[in-house]
Amino acid sequence: MDWILFLIFLATCLAAGSTGALFQPGDWYRSLEKPRWTPPDWVFPVAWFTLYLCIAGAAARAAPVEGSAYAMATFALQIALNTLWTPVFFGLRKMGGGMLVIVALWISVAVTMALFFQLDTLAGLLFVPYLGWVSIAAALNYAVWRRNDPAPVASSG
Amino acid sequence: MDWILFLIFLATCLAAGSTGALFQPGDWYRSLEKPRWTPPDWVFPVAWFTLYLCIAGAAARAAPVEGSAYAMATFALQIALNTLWTPVFFGLRKMGGGMLVIVALWISVAVTMALFFQLDTLAGLLFVPYLGWVSIAAALNYAVWRRNDPAPVASSG
Repeated sequence: MDWILFLIFLATCLAAGSTGALFQPGDWYRSLEKPRWTPPDWVFPVAWFTLYLCIAGAAARAAPVEGSAYAMATFALQIALNTLWTPVFFGLRKMGGGMLVIVALWISVAVTMALFFQLDTLAGLLFVPYLGWVSIAAALNYAVWRRNDPAPVASSG
Repeated sequence: MDWILFLIFLATCLAAGSTGALFQPGDWYRSLEKPRWTPPDWVFPVAWFTLYLCIAGAAARAAPVEGSAYAMATFALQIALNTLWTPVFFGLRKMGGGMLVIVALWISVAVTMALFFQLDTLAGLLFVPYLGWVSIAAALNYAVWRRNDPAPVASSG
């Protein structure tokens, strides 16, 4: 693996991840009604840091492979969406907007993973835990949104 | 040019640019003391939308060229930093933090431009206005920060 490439991608991931330190959950998030399976707060930074190492490793392996243009395009898309989610959810406290972003993130991560598998098996495998975690995060975003939204769209009202 | 590639990169740019619609300048920004050369508000979305078309076009030309791995790595880095700036400056109203992000953005855009020039001349040229605009934005961030920061770092005390 090209370690300089890895470090550029890791810096990219940490730029995205810095939103987690900048936009803290705080009292607002603590006051929300959450499902029983909500992971404790400390799990999130640990999970994300581990995932960012995997994501940067995957990208560093896939980028130099011939025919990686589409994979690198969807990689750029998913990292922009990853950067966007935290400011929308924790900054603006838009739970529906966060849902939109995380569904788009899930799709772009799934497509990037599929493209990575075609370029390099290990790169694809390194994206599997990322897709798993975004699935959990999306389910949590949805559960929190439905439990706390003052005007649910599908209200049985 | 591969138009599907262009559209994926354009979606990436629009994900970054959505922060401009989500985190509006508002009364806080209006109340700040600004330099005389500050562009009027309407210029920003027009400039950014034009730049995003150039950025997506540049990436769509550069990505398929052999040896584009470093360019696509720094491209991913600059789009993450581009997504990050608006929430930090307008969301958190951190003018010093915004300065840090925009200096990192400027460097990553400059490096991406240099790498694009090596892959495809037009791709490099399409990044020139982007670097120019980020230079203006960085100068504006600095000027606004120094004029309004309650505790400037280099205060003459």
